[in-house]
Amino acid sequence: METLSESLCFGGVQRVLRHASAATGTDMTFSLYTPPRAGAGPTPCVIFLAGLTCTHENATVKAGFQRVAAELGLAVVCPDTSPRGEDAPDSPAYDLGQGAGFYVDATQPPWDRNFRMFTYVAEELPALLRDSFGLGALGLTGHSMGGHGALTIAMRRPETFESLSAFAPIVSPMNCPWGRKAFSAYLGEDRALWARHDACALVRELGWKGEILVDQGTADPFLEDQLKTALFEQACAEAGQRARIRMQAGYDHSYFFIATFIEDHLRHHAAALR
Amino acid sequence: METLSESLCFGGVQRVLRHASAATGTDMTFSLYTPPRAGAGPTPCVIFLAGLTCTHENATVKAGFQRVAAELGLAVVCPDTSPRGEDAPDSPAYDLGQGAGFYVDATQPPWDRNFRMFTYVAEELPALLRDSFGLGALGLTGHSMGGHGALTIAMRRPETFESLSAFAPIVSPMNCPWGRKAFSAYLGEDRALWARHDACALVRELGWKGEILVDQGTADPFLEDQLKTALFEQACAEAGQRARIRMQAGYDHSYFFIATFIEDHLRHHAAALR
Repeated sequence: METLSESLCFGGVQRVLRHASAATGTDMTFSLYTPPRAGAGPTPCVIFLAGLTCTHENATVKAGFQRVAAELGLAVVCPDTSPRGEDAPDSPAYDLGQGAGFYVDATQPPWDRNFRMFTYVAEELPALLRDSFGLGALGLTGHSMGGHGALTIAMRRPETFESLSAFAPIVSPMNCPWGRKAFSAYLGEDRALWARHDACALVRELGWKGEILVDQGTADPFLEDQLKTALFEQACAEAGQRARIRMQAGYDHSYFFIATFIEDHLRHHAAALR
Repeated sequence: METLSESLCFGGVQRVLRHASAATGTDMTFSLYTPPRAGAGPTPCVIFLAGLTCTHENATVKAGFQRVAAELGLAVVCPDTSPRGEDAPDSPAYDLGQGAGFYVDATQPPWDRNFRMFTYVAEELPALLRDSFGLGALGLTGHSMGGHGALTIAMRRPETFESLSAFAPIVSPMNCPWGRKAFSAYLGEDRALWARHDACALVRELGWKGEILVDQGTADPFLEDQLKTALFEQACAEAGQRARIRMQAGYDHSYFFIATFIEDHLRHHAAALR
């Protein structure tokens, strides 16, 4: 475990760390914010999964979570969105390959050796945060592709995650161009496998044990073709899933939108993680 | 005036704008945050001057000012740190030329035609904000090289600016390597001219009409050789200048430091601008 940077922020410590990942077979970088006061017992932690083209850095420097995390006594972890480097495969497209892992374990070559982001986020990272940093209960959130990751991973691993929210998530990758392209490449054409990584399918099949908080901007240019929030509203309604899905008038897909609502999300997580 | 981007943020609007600058003879880009409620009369505005290597973007996406600016009804403007582009001179060094304007009007070739950031920030931008955006009373703050810019420009233009603060400012460019290199290139060897852009010299000569708020991290790697906060403390003490100079234990030079204390600075400005 290598510490790449360390800065005091709102009385806590914002670190960037790198470690050799067994899941991906590459080095993986993530950021970790630890709040100033350690309360009684292990510090609860929210993992923020970023979207297409992002690294650990985007949410770390743009989401403005540190102030509220410090107040609530939450740690916040921002992983990278895929394996990186010359040893991992890539594609020239922004929406496939490095920066676009889609939080699945790829089954298709050349992706299957390194692109194992489901296992990384669902298993390796939680164990690392518990064993190396003594962190406690975990919440999961994310943005866009990372919102898809948060919804699907938490629903499939309710024993690992205690709270769930998403910003502008891709709610049904089976039913949008980004998702179909990525799933075809990473998972092949087995639609049953696709459904295991589709939040709308999973909320019908598995559901989530708590309330899901989703914020979605109405001025988001990806809303209609890619994100399709209405499909998730419908799936939650049909499945009887508790969800607060808030259409935020005039907000777009940027981190300015995330920064505006991150406080609500962290409070949602803190309430469940206590 | 061209609008490059526009996002809702905390109920206000975060814009990036570009205009042809008479001062620099180039296009200049700046960001403008306008808060959700326009109170009675023109909206007061704080201008944030960034440091070496930065553009308008750094503080806009990293400082996290929008939440407090929205609450206080303040506009916030982040200009670029120099003229840019192929028509302006440059240097391969990170601390000279584009990204390193040092908020002076250069007198020396090749810089003297475009590098007129003093006039840009002290005159052209305030007139633009008043005439094109209807903004009201102005405060000035900044970070590092931009903290130098804020201190020196405000003290020389008390009729234009009503409030003043700085994050980790270069307090005496005449007495540090960054400043000596930049002033030699931009201003030549006339030390009397240098003193007109040196906050320690100006606080003795002119002073500032209000209280100056300065935050400086004790773990800032540039503190000892470049920033030299103690020189400003001494100058303020000798000149009887009201100043709150706060040494913040353990904080470094990053935007994590700025984000931690931006709320205090905006409240300092809002109190004076009302």
